[in-house]
Amino acid sequence: MNTFGQLLRVTTFGESHGPAIGCVLDGCPPGIAIAPEDFIHDLARRATGKSRHTSARHEADVVEILSGVYEGITTGTPIALLIRNTDQRSKDYAKIAAQFRPGHADYTYWQKYGIRDPRGGGRSSARETTMRVAAAVIAKKWLAQRGVRVYGYLAQIGQITPNALDVAAIETNPFFWPDAAQVPELEAYMDALRKSGDSVGAKVVAVADGVPPGWGEPIYGKLDGELAAAMMSINAVKGVEIGDGFASVAHTGSQHRDVMTPEGFLSNHAGGILGGISSGQQIRVSVAFKPTSSLRLPVQGLDVDGNVVDVITTGRHDPCVGIRATPICEAMLALVLMDQALRHRAQCGDVGEVHPRIAGNTSITDAKR
Amino acid sequence: MNTFGQLLRVTTFGESHGPAIGCVLDGCPPGIAIAPEDFIHDLARRATGKSRHTSARHEADVVEILSGVYEGITTGTPIALLIRNTDQRSKDYAKIAAQFRPGHADYTYWQKYGIRDPRGGGRSSARETTMRVAAAVIAKKWLAQRGVRVYGYLAQIGQITPNALDVAAIETNPFFWPDAAQVPELEAYMDALRKSGDSVGAKVVAVADGVPPGWGEPIYGKLDGELAAAMMSINAVKGVEIGDGFASVAHTGSQHRDVMTPEGFLSNHAGGILGGISSGQQIRVSVAFKPTSSLRLPVQGLDVDGNVVDVITTGRHDPCVGIRATPICEAMLALVLMDQALRHRAQCGDVGEVHPRIAGNTSITDAKR
Amino acid sequence: MNTFGQLLRVTTFGESHGPAIGCVLDGCPPGIAIAPEDFIHDLARRATGKSRHTSARHEADVVEILSGVYEGITTGTPIALLIRNTDQRSKDYAKIAAQFRPGHADYTYWQKYGIRDPRGGGRSSARETTMRVAAAVIAKKWLAQRGVRVYGYLAQIGQITPNALDVAAIETNPFFWPDAAQVPELEAYMDALRKSGDSVGAKVVAVADGVPPGWGEPIYGKLDGELAAAMMSINAVKGVEIGDGFASVAHTGSQHRDVMTPEGFLSNHAGGILGGISSGQQIRVSVAFKPTSSLRLPVQGLDVDGNVVDVITTGRHDPCVGIRATPICEAMLALVLMDQALRHRAQCGDVGEVHPRIAGNTSITDAKR
Amino acid sequence: MNTFGQLLRVTTFGESHGPAIGCVLDGCPPGIAIAPEDFIHDLARRATGKSRHTSARHEADVVEILSGVYEGITTGTPIALLIRNTDQRSKDYAKIAAQFRPGHADYTYWQKYGIRDPRGGGRSSARETTMRVAAAVIAKKWLAQRGVRVYGYLAQIGQITPNALDVAAIETNPFFWPDAAQVPELEAYMDALRKSGDSVGAKVVAVADGVPPGWGEPIYGKLDGELAAAMMSINAVKGVEIGDGFASVAHTGSQHRDVMTPEGFLSNHAGGILGGISSGQQIRVSVAFKPTSSLRLPVQGLDVDGNVVDVITTGRHDPCVGIRATPICEAMLALVLMDQALRHRAQCGDVGEVHPRIAGNTSITDAKR
Repeated sequence: MNTFGQLLRVTTFGESHGPAIGCVLDGCPPGIAIAPEDFIHDLARRATGKSRHTSARHEADVVEILSGVYEGITTGTPIALLIRNTDQRSKDYAKIAAQFRPGHADYTYWQKYGIRDPRGGGRSSARETTMRVAAAVIAKKWLAQRGVRVYGYLAQIGQITPNALDVAAIETNPFFWPDAAQVPELEAYMDALRKSGDSVGAKVVAVADGVPPGWGEPIYGKLDGELAAAMMSINAVKGVEIGDGFASVAHTGSQHRDVMTPEGFLSNHAGGILGGISSGQQIRVSVAFKPTSSLRLPVQGLDVDGNVVDVITTGRHDPCVGIRATPICEAMLALVLMDQALRHRAQCGDVGEVHPRIAGNTSITDAKR
Repeated sequence: MNTFGQLLRVTTFGESHGPAIGCVLDGCPPGIAIAPEDFIHDLARRATGKSRHTSARHEADVVEILSGVYEGITTGTPIALLIRNTDQRSKDYAKIAAQFRPGHADYTYWQKYGIRDPRGGGRSSARETTMRVAAAVIAKKWLAQRGVRVYGYLAQIGQITPNALDVAAIETNPFFWPDAAQVPELEAYMDALRKSGDSVGAKVVAVADGVPPGWGEPIYGKLDGELAAAMMSINAVKGVEIGDGFASVAHTGSQHRDVMTPEGFLSNHAGGILGGISSGQQIRVSVAFKPTSSLRLPVQGLDVDGNVVDVITTGRHDPCVGIRATPICEAMLALVLMDQALRHRAQCGDVGEVHPRIAGNTSITDAKR
Repeated sequence: MNTFGQLLRVTTFGESHGPAIGCVLDGCPPGIAIAPEDFIHDLARRATGKSRHTSARHEADVVEILSGVYEGITTGTPIALLIRNTDQRSKDYAKIAAQFRPGHADYTYWQKYGIRDPRGGGRSSARETTMRVAAAVIAKKWLAQRGVRVYGYLAQIGQITPNALDVAAIETNPFFWPDAAQVPELEAYMDALRKSGDSVGAKVVAVADGVPPGWGEPIYGKLDGELAAAMMSINAVKGVEIGDGFASVAHTGSQHRDVMTPEGFLSNHAGGILGGISSGQQIRVSVAFKPTSSLRLPVQGLDVDGNVVDVITTGRHDPCVGIRATPICEAMLALVLMDQALRHRAQCGDVGEVHPRIAGNTSITDAKR
Repeated sequence: MNTFGQLLRVTTFGESHGPAIGCVLDGCPPGIAIAPEDFIHDLARRATGKSRHTSARHEADVVEILSGVYEGITTGTPIALLIRNTDQRSKDYAKIAAQFRPGHADYTYWQKYGIRDPRGGGRSSARETTMRVAAAVIAKKWLAQRGVRVYGYLAQIGQITPNALDVAAIETNPFFWPDAAQVPELEAYMDALRKSGDSVGAKVVAVADGVPPGWGEPIYGKLDGELAAAMMSINAVKGVEIGDGFASVAHTGSQHRDVMTPEGFLSNHAGGILGGISSGQQIRVSVAFKPTSSLRLPVQGLDVDGNVVDVITTGRHDPCVGIRATPICEAMLALVLMDQALRHRAQCGDVGEVHPRIAGNTSITDAKR
């Protein structure tokens, strides 16, 4: 189960400190122009070392295209992408290998497999998400050609929430924060946190504009169901919401239902999905990240023999993993959307011909977007 | 995509007001005793008409076992379950068919397929979930034989939350509410709501006790990822949390990480899952349900030609769909767990032999459970 | 694994002498007109009791459409089809249940599952193939709307092979034999065989005309690979060939390669598939059926305790299962083709736009067809 | 669809003359010792350049293990294997790119995708099978630990068939021929063929000894069905047989059925599979390879504009691709068996406990093996 998607399938491999990480993107349509340079922007956005508020691992993250692209164009055959791990520090992992860090997958991997690669978290490291971002570069490109734009931002860090939602501000600061005025406050907060040796959680919102109505499969292939799985598969995620999410629990029906008018929907509590299928409104997903479990602060724990030990995690670690997670959430949103778009084309590609009335009413779009 | 699961696969079919609904449960191990009576309890818990607070559809919901069971024992071949729709009211659906109810899948089905079955919501009706509950009766039985107990309760309705978590109280009231003392307050609240013609949301918590460490597959087959997809695939769900969920966003790392001791974990913020794999602690999932979209209160809407119309929904509808959702959430939890258990046995069935050290340390269990 | 197909998925269930058999056809496009009468023709072609040369089970095989069709049109939701087993003879299965018939799945089911339904072969009975034929009625209809015609014939029975390939003759005799002149010879042969209590094998050829170039997925989703799996999944099949099949072993390359001209290919040794993808030529698959294992002739065998026993198979059995298999082979061919067509549309639906040159050269068709 | 298998999944990527080929083996159990050296033997057996009778491409085919193995032991995470293409000849592919070689996938890839990588056949080259052989090295090792031995041999080349079946002889000659006395005849035959510029087909038989009864899933996951798909997915394969295959067509039932005795089966016409499930007998699969389509002999053909051109294929090509296919057929057999073994363990892992009678009667084995 290192494969994600039904028709557009991403298979990733690689450990944090193994020789390389990589992915195979299968099912991609032919005819898309792809060059190694295309991956630079999003990998840099996700990369460690972007700012002093994220961890200090410095890797080139140079993507090599091994297959599936001929003369710069996708051929429809599997696209393999490879990134060598150049920043593998040689050190003694014997101590780490023998004990379980709280909040980490150390204990569960060891229980499941009877063996684990202890170097930097091995397969359970967030380094794996690099390949999701890389694969999604292609998905984003394909979606953009169809008028779909995917982006994300940080909507909470610890107890701080944005005072404004200024999309233009997001990419101007290292926090993907949609209110530039709050950036100094965030910087001070993060500096204090890093000094304390502690960490904090964060909430990311990923959105997609321009998704046409009809993407998504009812019941077990619902667009929101697959988004939930996609987001929850990211390291450190503990919650996923579509549209108003848990706030809907306290809503009344008359307040929550999004009224349609000839000019479009009057609200978007649903987050752009009804019955598992896109409605033509903005798709909106919120994702909760727990605080980084790797802390400089020592804690009592256990070793593999059941003895009590002091667990101290050294090395490079973000005080807030959620910050760098914005491009990862975007990536998962883009991959799910493109997969669903292909599946929709497969089953309903000729709905227009068979039922001409479907061609009508596309003017019902989101007036509030 | 009307199939759920990897090795234990549930395929459901049927529309709300078609001749029947049913499911095929494939991949089930042989040797499990199953009788038609086994389905009665959970189907009754989920059934409409359980109390005056849920809708008035009265159906026998009698399960017929069509295959896969010989002399009362599962044979390993697919188990088909069928329920005839006996309460199909004959009425004129022409008006409903021509307009889009806000908050419903009417518009998106119509956009996707160019055709929809308008009778009672057709395939998008929550009636489909009956078969999930039926299939999960078998999963719960198999899990129980292995010491795993699955149950659920209502943790919020509108703005009301339980004052206590008394597991014994859950099945003594029609709200699956874990504090018997609050039941009169809930009854009054629901009566007022029904009188007003409005509806409200709810939050369900589903838990599993006794899950051994090691169930779940890393990366895209994570136990929490599959639970998120499973829950989000239920009608009206807008959010899913594992453990502390969105509350984790405001946690610090030192506060959130669950410390292990020789006697077990000291807390369970993680909800029993680390790195996508069960830790041996209680699995805890929270699910947000939006308020019922079908209201007696009229609303402006659109018909299939784009004209503005008054949409009035008559018929039987729960003022709070979340109440009846408790057994559905349990069902999805049970199905995911059993599927993961089978997959774990496939890949790691001989871990004990190969790596004898895994046999140790099972004493690390949840002290708080 | 009672599900077949990737996007067009058939899930079958039911035992030979259980209450019913059925299937769920998922992923079917909306907008196809389907009525219960549509199933009559092909089910009758496959049915037992068609002639005195096939077994005497008399069942109505009435298909009930349980879901997925509204007002006679497919809606895109799963189509469930049900056939009640009306001809279940009540008899004592205790003896059959305790011994293993040679050439049957009795022993292997018992070894795998530790339990088996002995009534009429249970799940391993060819009765299951009824639902494949039923599901394929829909696939054939969809394909026919796109100019693809699927049919089959018997190409060998015992040592007898057709003297001519007259497509018009196939449906005029109970053997699906493409040379009407040989029918008396076949009748005499079968009468003698039935009298002897023995059985014989047969070879079926299934063909598809009008398949456009481009259907099929390279490597593990090859059109020929999936056809091989589809045919080999039919009861009693021991071999599958595409085009010239095993005769290719003795060919030279200069003899085997199909030369292309502006008027089309000059031969079709390949059977219409190159590199796993349809070439636009006729698709041709040959399927070998072993002789019926159920014979009146007694044979020494074993019971479940390992004792030597005399095994005598009574009941209704075809002396040549291959005869009735023609519609089953057609069904599997149609299902594979439609599934691949949908997958092709998903991945390459816009190849024409992106690479306009693909629009050319469709005049290269099979001159020999 | 570049992924093969259900639980043990092989995803391959790479083109013949791209930078690299590789695979990801997912779902592999932990605890298997694997080193780069383990791949040398089988890759050499498959490699081009093994003898003067196979083509002259000289590649090291050095396997790099990129992930999934820690300190020489599989960890349960995906195993990525990479082979750099070191023998990429730089040459002008413009002419090849513009015309369709008969018998090749050139035309169908171009029709499907609108673009193709013409270098050495691109993705449709048999070079892809290298990774199947590499992945199967791990499967063979796992199977061997459970007493299952997989091997293969050449059973026909052109019109020549073996006079004896001497398993010990197979690996002593470059033809995998089971009769050493015929090797000089074969050498002369191949020398003449190569001189003529023509090619010839071949038949490979792959067998597995020691497979326990019970592996395989009925209906659409049948062991023989999956073997048929696996073999047919190999380049140039046109036919697959299980056991007696097409010869069964002329058999009578009394002749074909394999009689069981307390000492074992008296024959193995079935090829070790009954009802899609292994019987405990030897598994035997025969595979037909067409003659190599790439010939020095010129032929009339078409270019991408539909013009008639002379097609001359230069470069390195085996006059009989079937010779090198023996290890590839073994690989597919091993991969299918291991996948089925894991699936069997998942569903029926506790059959022994539930139905103790299954533990008996394992003395019913193949007396003739």
